Amino acid sequence: MGVVLNIEDGKRPSINRLLELTAADMGRVNELILSKAGSDVEMIPEIANHLISSGGKRLRPMVTLATAQMFGYSGDGHIKLATSVEFMHTATLLHDDVVDESDLRRGRKTARMIWGNQASVLVGDFLLGQAFRMMVDVGSLEALDILSTAASIIAEGEVMQLAAAKNLETTEDEHFAVIKAKTAALFSAAAEVGPVVAGATRTDRAALRSYGMNLGLAFQLIDDALDYGGDSKKLGKNVGDDFREGKVTLPVILCYRRGTAEERAFWKQAIEDNVADDAALEKALALMTRHGAIADTIGRARHFGEIARDALAPLPATPQKAALLDVIDFCISRVV
Amino acid sequence: MGVVLNIEDGKRPSINRLLELTAADMGRVNELILSKAGSDVEMIPEIANHLISSGGKRLRPMVTLATAQMFGYSGDGHIKLATSVEFMHTATLLHDDVVDESDLRRGRKTARMIWGNQASVLVGDFLLGQAFRMMVDVGSLEALDILSTAASIIAEGEVMQLAAAKNLETTEDEHFAVIKAKTAALFSAAAEVGPVVAGATRTDRAALRSYGMNLGLAFQLIDDALDYGGDSKKLGKNVGDDFREGKVTLPVILCYRRGTAEERAFWKQAIEDNVADDAALEKALALMTRHGAIADTIGRARHFGEIARDALAPLPATPQKAALLDVIDFCISRVV
Repeated sequence: MGVVLNIEDGKRPSINRLLELTAADMGRVNELILSKAGSDVEMIPEIANHLISSGGKRLRPMVTLATAQMFGYSGDGHIKLATSVEFMHTATLLHDDVVDESDLRRGRKTARMIWGNQASVLVGDFLLGQAFRMMVDVGSLEALDILSTAASIIAEGEVMQLAAAKNLETTEDEHFAVIKAKTAALFSAAAEVGPVVAGATRTDRAALRSYGMNLGLAFQLIDDALDYGGDSKKLGKNVGDDFREGKVTLPVILCYRRGTAEERAFWKQAIEDNVADDAALEKALALMTRHGAIADTIGRARHFGEIARDALAPLPATPQKAALLDVIDFCISRVV
Repeated sequence: MGVVLNIEDGKRPSINRLLELTAADMGRVNELILSKAGSDVEMIPEIANHLISSGGKRLRPMVTLATAQMFGYSGDGHIKLATSVEFMHTATLLHDDVVDESDLRRGRKTARMIWGNQASVLVGDFLLGQAFRMMVDVGSLEALDILSTAASIIAEGEVMQLAAAKNLETTEDEHFAVIKAKTAALFSAAAEVGPVVAGATRTDRAALRSYGMNLGLAFQLIDDALDYGGDSKKLGKNVGDDFREGKVTLPVILCYRRGTAEERAFWKQAIEDNVADDAALEKALALMTRHGAIADTIGRARHFGEIARDALAPLPATPQKAALLDVIDFCISRVV
């Protein structure tokens, strides 16, 4: 069911170089995560650790670390900023699962299924507060500006998505606006605070900001494609989760716009009236193949991936630059 | 049913002096609130305005404004900080109503009843993000430190309260720890950022921090007392709302600890098993009278009010000081 990409040299792209370059710093980030998720109120570390140990790749903090290293940063502010970025992400996941009423994340029960919606909302708030405290501790008003602006934009994007929920008339552009806000803004901020804390030039900051934004867009589009054709074990979610939740992602938008009147009626029933059983999913997957919706979603992701690549082009060749370029290929190859 | 206090000069305390001193600045705060709650995503200003127009007194931002004025501050940072404080408060209300599953706030439907839990969580996140952006804009790392720490502590207090929910064995001290975090921390931060932005001494900052903390404790205790004996129209909530929601507030804690075995069984049934109908409420009110639980809750509030008063004692006599002292009396007199 998966869509096979051509990996030119026959090897699957990996983020091994990024993992190696940031290994030592990530050790410190992981320590800081445990320490700042601590509280005498037991439920807080329990929930935080549930998410933290859930096997996410921690791509965002690694991006912050690599972008700070790239400009020769030698302090420890990037450790705190990377941890703040991961806490912002974790807080968003906690609130998202409540908003989406999700039962599973990466193959494990969501926090709200174990501790309830109430605790998920409040522990998310706590982690966000801790993220801001760490940023303040770094003392860079520019980094604070970038990350606090991202926090507003992410929430605005989530509300936008909620307001557009189940609206099949959503245009591709409107959808890009949503994923730019809810996903790409944090990647962009994660990539920009590295050069900021390292005192890089405005040009270099802009390059990394653009890299992060476009990487984030590609990342989200691939995520949306995976839901209709990925390997569920690898992804930790089942094929069709978005479909069953009635989410209007790009594959659905493309199918709906390209479909016949009869097909549009099918999508309305599936998404708006939630007739999304196995038979409906099978039909949805067939329509996606017919209209090339998955392949074109991946094509759109590649487009953003190329912009991310060009954003870094003027920068000198460094191990960090190579590692950040790997991330683009890795994200896109997840769909294979 | 209300408990009558002795108001020595026969007049009801008011916050008129505070209102007058901060009127011009509050005009600017209100403008900034409208502007920063704005978004192209319509649901955001709708929900924000629902809360903002709900007739709250805006005590917290007025405290920030007065404490900045008190130390001769002449910039406009206090306007942004006061607005940030109000946004933090509004975000907390939005999340609280979701966590408490509340239907009414100040006599009006809660946002979650109109727009749903999902939007309430996300718009709360947006307002919190906007609050941080405004603080960053002021550029005071000290003020950022105080307010971001308060954000963590508030969330921690809410989780603490959730973990202790319906636990009648909660001690008075444990309860004070909860209300200190969930309510008093924001009053304390609101009072401290004024002198901080005005460049006041550490001693003066500590005085205002202590004033805010103790005012906040008194405020919350009076709120808890009001639920069992206030004038429901004035409060915008009905007598017994906390009781029906099974909240373990100080009047309940005192009654439970002072009660007979038979009375404790009654409280267990009412709070833990939620047998909280009108008959149960009537019995609860009778037990509160028998044990002096409301009067003693007010007594505890007076104790904190006195500490707040003494915190300001060393400061020179200014109109702002007089106005801040009025607030203490006003808060406690709400229960009359």
